[in-house]
Amino acid sequence: MKLLIPGPVELDSEVLLAMAKPLMGHRTPDFEEILVECCRILKEVYQTRNDVAIITGSGTSAMEAAVASVIKEGDEVISITGGKFGERMGEIAQAFGARVKRVDVEWGDTFSLEEVENAIAESDAVAITLTHNETSTGVVHDAKALGKLAKEYDLLFIVDGITSVGGDEVKTDEWGIDLCITGSQKCLAAPPGLGFVAVSERAWEVIENNPRKRAYYLDLAKYRKSLAKNTTPFTPSVTLIYGLYAALKKIEGETLEARIKRHRTLAKATREAAKAMNLELFAAQRCASNTVTAIKIPSGLTDDDVRGALKREHGILVAGGQAQLKGKIFRLGHMGNVRFADLVQVLAALELVLKKAGHELKLGEGVAAAEEVFASQG
Amino acid sequence: MKLLIPGPVELDSEVLLAMAKPLMGHRTPDFEEILVECCRILKEVYQTRNDVAIITGSGTSAMEAAVASVIKEGDEVISITGGKFGERMGEIAQAFGARVKRVDVEWGDTFSLEEVENAIAESDAVAITLTHNETSTGVVHDAKALGKLAKEYDLLFIVDGITSVGGDEVKTDEWGIDLCITGSQKCLAAPPGLGFVAVSERAWEVIENNPRKRAYYLDLAKYRKSLAKNTTPFTPSVTLIYGLYAALKKIEGETLEARIKRHRTLAKATREAAKAMNLELFAAQRCASNTVTAIKIPSGLTDDDVRGALKREHGILVAGGQAQLKGKIFRLGHMGNVRFADLVQVLAALELVLKKAGHELKLGEGVAAAEEVFASQG
Repeated sequence: MKLLIPGPVELDSEVLLAMAKPLMGHRTPDFEEILVECCRILKEVYQTRNDVAIITGSGTSAMEAAVASVIKEGDEVISITGGKFGERMGEIAQAFGARVKRVDVEWGDTFSLEEVENAIAESDAVAITLTHNETSTGVVHDAKALGKLAKEYDLLFIVDGITSVGGDEVKTDEWGIDLCITGSQKCLAAPPGLGFVAVSERAWEVIENNPRKRAYYLDLAKYRKSLAKNTTPFTPSVTLIYGLYAALKKIEGETLEARIKRHRTLAKATREAAKAMNLELFAAQRCASNTVTAIKIPSGLTDDDVRGALKREHGILVAGGQAQLKGKIFRLGHMGNVRFADLVQVLAALELVLKKAGHELKLGEGVAAAEEVFASQG
Repeated sequence: MKLLIPGPVELDSEVLLAMAKPLMGHRTPDFEEILVECCRILKEVYQTRNDVAIITGSGTSAMEAAVASVIKEGDEVISITGGKFGERMGEIAQAFGARVKRVDVEWGDTFSLEEVENAIAESDAVAITLTHNETSTGVVHDAKALGKLAKEYDLLFIVDGITSVGGDEVKTDEWGIDLCITGSQKCLAAPPGLGFVAVSERAWEVIENNPRKRAYYLDLAKYRKSLAKNTTPFTPSVTLIYGLYAALKKIEGETLEARIKRHRTLAKATREAAKAMNLELFAAQRCASNTVTAIKIPSGLTDDDVRGALKREHGILVAGGQAQLKGKIFRLGHMGNVRFADLVQVLAALELVLKKAGHELKLGEGVAAAEEVFASQG
């Protein structure tokens, strides 16, 4: 089955084979060397000079580590929503006793900076959370602008970059992100099961002076202490670290710049192809994601006509809509190792299944539009 | 490097190769089938009819999930210590706002039931925590007796079975364990990075009625909801689940009964060999662990004379002492896939390095003692 879902993404065979290697002791110099190398490349990908904590857990574990480490019961937190994962950031803050002030954004759109500023002004918030790239709607928000605002109001800026770091531009330090979260199985094209948090000096201070931190495994202070000794506070998944290291070396080989450009070209090609297939994009043009594209299921067609047929007839797995978008959109992940040749497969197959289901389109026009985009990129 | 540490343990080649398989979508029937099979075999290993939550994270993440899901701020919790991991259980409860009443046990020894009962009687505790097999000291505690006491006093019984489940006898239901925690990389001989909690009906009730639960990723209620749909609440590490499944099938093939017998024989052989080598065991005979043996470093010898030499000269990694036992003991893990032939390697090498460092022993006597134990087991 070919995976074009927005993560877990397909892994390079070198990454897969790295995970078949016998385990080494996790408290040995040989393993520490791999950890140090992983941290070095992760910092480049994050565009940060700060420490990056490596947590064995899903991406959500890293979200929880970030929130639980800096927030204490009763703190007010501004949470930008607008999708399943933006909402999750707020839900986690709430679970840890924060008073959450939501800035609700329409799904498929982005926030108004003014509205956010108003919310901040009438709050006594200590932090603001943003899901940079909202996987559920195919939207990328302007984290840079929000970072500026956060700085102005002296708020901790907590960013879920799970589907942007390593695929789209994320300038952690320059944008003033205090806690920048990502996961292994998305743009990094590493195996699922590792979460990461890049932590600013300011956030470390808050973490180390948080008197009522409700965390132990997910207490970032423990990760910092261990990072200083090139190790991890708890037994890491040695196997997944092998896979991560192989994946990060691939990123280094490609260069971050080329990787971001590739993702942007893929996204543009996907959008142009969708339009040429007479399909409607779910996200507004001005905030369309560079790593995942959400496309409306044409009226009269079902999820099964599109996703079911792609799977049955062409062995291609794309993602459906989540929550209130179930059955209304499908989502094409073009992150990680996806290249032109992968994208064109799914676009051509999509043309066939849409045609078969009675959707009006001219076969080949979507593929042609994608080719045009690639041709123009040289 | 040959690993004889108390986890992560060496993996079978079939387990390693399973992890080199391409990822499948984690929300697909094919993957759900694997998950269901893993749960089925895990229940057998746990000797439970209850649900077992599978968490992507180190063993400590499962400890935190168990504690954070049932404990709320202000609750009193009795915590049996006596080693690094027993203490960790108490520290986690404390991190989540519990008032922790420690029953301190001398490291290397086990608790007195009377002392525990006195502590319970003068408390208003809602739960009691125990690390069943204390990896840091090589002690196994009587969880069955403590379970009986917990039931008498209507306490939730939270057991860290990280280095016992799948290697030593753990009768989760029969012993009245409400939350039984384990990890993948120990007796199960699966890759590190997965934690498990078997949850009793009584504990589920507490979890679902816990009004101030400080958890989201580690909220067991979310795992139960997903288990009912044969899935996981967050993207699982598909790769590690492949490895887990392969490891669990091996356990099924061996049978749990034979596996426990194997571990007990290995432990006995290790103890007899140590004595024959003129070494002193750290744990009291009456509570010596069946999965890890702690041995005192003979006076006059250093950690490097023993562990350093084993590593340099024979390519064998055994564990050192932790916390106050650093440099005073070394620990031999005989859990997971370890067999007679593996044990005998380390015993013979140990004789050589001890002799070389000036320890008095007669070469071959440790190995002979181990052989005697195996011979008597038939």
